[in-house]
Amino acid sequence: MYSTLSKKKATAIRQFALKKYRLAQAAFVLEGKKGIQALLASDYAIKYIVGTSTFFEENQDIPASIRKETELFEVKKELLSRLGSFVHNHEVLAVAAIPRPTAPCLSPSGMTLALDSIQDPGNLGTIIRIADWYGIATILCSQTTVDLYNPKVLQASMGSFVKVNLHYVDLPHYLQGLNLPILGATLDGKPLHDFLFPNYGVLVIGNESHGIQPAVKETLTAAISIPRYGHANSLNAATATAILCDNWKRICAG
Amino acid sequence: MYSTLSKKKATAIRQFALKKYRLAQAAFVLEGKKGIQALLASDYAIKYIVGTSTFFEENQDIPASIRKETELFEVKKELLSRLGSFVHNHEVLAVAAIPRPTAPCLSPSGMTLALDSIQDPGNLGTIIRIADWYGIATILCSQTTVDLYNPKVLQASMGSFVKVNLHYVDLPHYLQGLNLPILGATLDGKPLHDFLFPNYGVLVIGNESHGIQPAVKETLTAAISIPRYGHANSLNAATATAILCDNWKRICAG
Repeated sequence: MYSTLSKKKATAIRQFALKKYRLAQAAFVLEGKKGIQALLASDYAIKYIVGTSTFFEENQDIPASIRKETELFEVKKELLSRLGSFVHNHEVLAVAAIPRPTAPCLSPSGMTLALDSIQDPGNLGTIIRIADWYGIATILCSQTTVDLYNPKVLQASMGSFVKVNLHYVDLPHYLQGLNLPILGATLDGKPLHDFLFPNYGVLVIGNESHGIQPAVKETLTAAISIPRYGHANSLNAATATAILCDNWKRICAG
Repeated sequence: MYSTLSKKKATAIRQFALKKYRLAQAAFVLEGKKGIQALLASDYAIKYIVGTSTFFEENQDIPASIRKETELFEVKKELLSRLGSFVHNHEVLAVAAIPRPTAPCLSPSGMTLALDSIQDPGNLGTIIRIADWYGIATILCSQTTVDLYNPKVLQASMGSFVKVNLHYVDLPHYLQGLNLPILGATLDGKPLHDFLFPNYGVLVIGNESHGIQPAVKETLTAAISIPRYGHANSLNAATATAILCDNWKRICAG
């Protein structure tokens, strides 16, 4: 029922840490039990599941439809933790196909996030989790934003990456073409506690060090900022995203 | 003017990555230019500054009072990046004394944070930055919370650790002794958008996986939660802290 993992396949799995290998194979590695459970419940096509005997004992309910399409490998946990990026993964990893990109379809009502060159994988993963919490279905990413399938992004998203659609686009041009309110988070915008949020639109979050690039700034219909009561120079990009989403949804839960 | 860094001292600096060495020496290492600039502007007693020639050229205005107390070492950037925890630190690090603990002094007005076993260094550092942004002067930490002087905590705080007072206390007993509103962030508390925040009190944030421990839960005067509009099971601890602080300060900026 379980195959043996060849050395060749083990070496291949390690390579998925590299973006160019992921692109060439159109596949990625996901590590950890919680993420895999989210993956199993999603539409992602899973190529292999590599798990310990404990994992397979505890997850005997992997549906037949998935078992038919997916190779299952049983390995010792020492080998498992050498295959991925995280030394603490002692249970399971999976290799799944990267879905074909589709054209982003923005909901005519509701809120969309746009990320202008978010560089830190932990920030992108956390932002995906925040989007999933606030029911935001789509995130537009500039092509300079870190890759969704980077292991640290997937890890920080805590499984939420299966629920939120990310689209990598030419962000300034894409936003220019939209006929929607486009709000940008800046340090000198209108204080958000008094801001009248629209019922729908795009919220742009800028790069961790440089903020929103000029070409994207030109597309904004409003700049908003988070009121500061103390001294810190700035907030982390994911932190700021959370505060903005909470304030927007408080007013327009629709 | 600049001393040569002995091999013995270089070895000693590397050891500061370990908590028990920091405790034994009552000192810690801080890496990176922004943090060091915050440190120079603070009351911390700095023992050494180890920087590249570029750093010292750009920072000729280190006050005489600090130069008198502090040994300055000029090193090549290759050596520098081998001394600390971050390979990307190519400019400067400092060794400073850990201040003697004092009894926490809660402001009778305003808001205090309490952290019940926050384990992730990035989360603690980010929470310190959030506290600094929202003008929260004091954070109470359970003794099981990660050490403030862990290099990753300091890094994520972006220099804000010099502005916020952290006190490691026996949290359940300490809170039991307070005669203040004590709010806890839980997944099933009252929705915070309708919650009437008090003018002053303590906000408790629980552990990343297990939430608030039972002995601390008993001390709460109210449990509040962040409204969810989508599907994610939870939010990151630092993300949740930010949303709660923003909602509290929106109502009671005093």
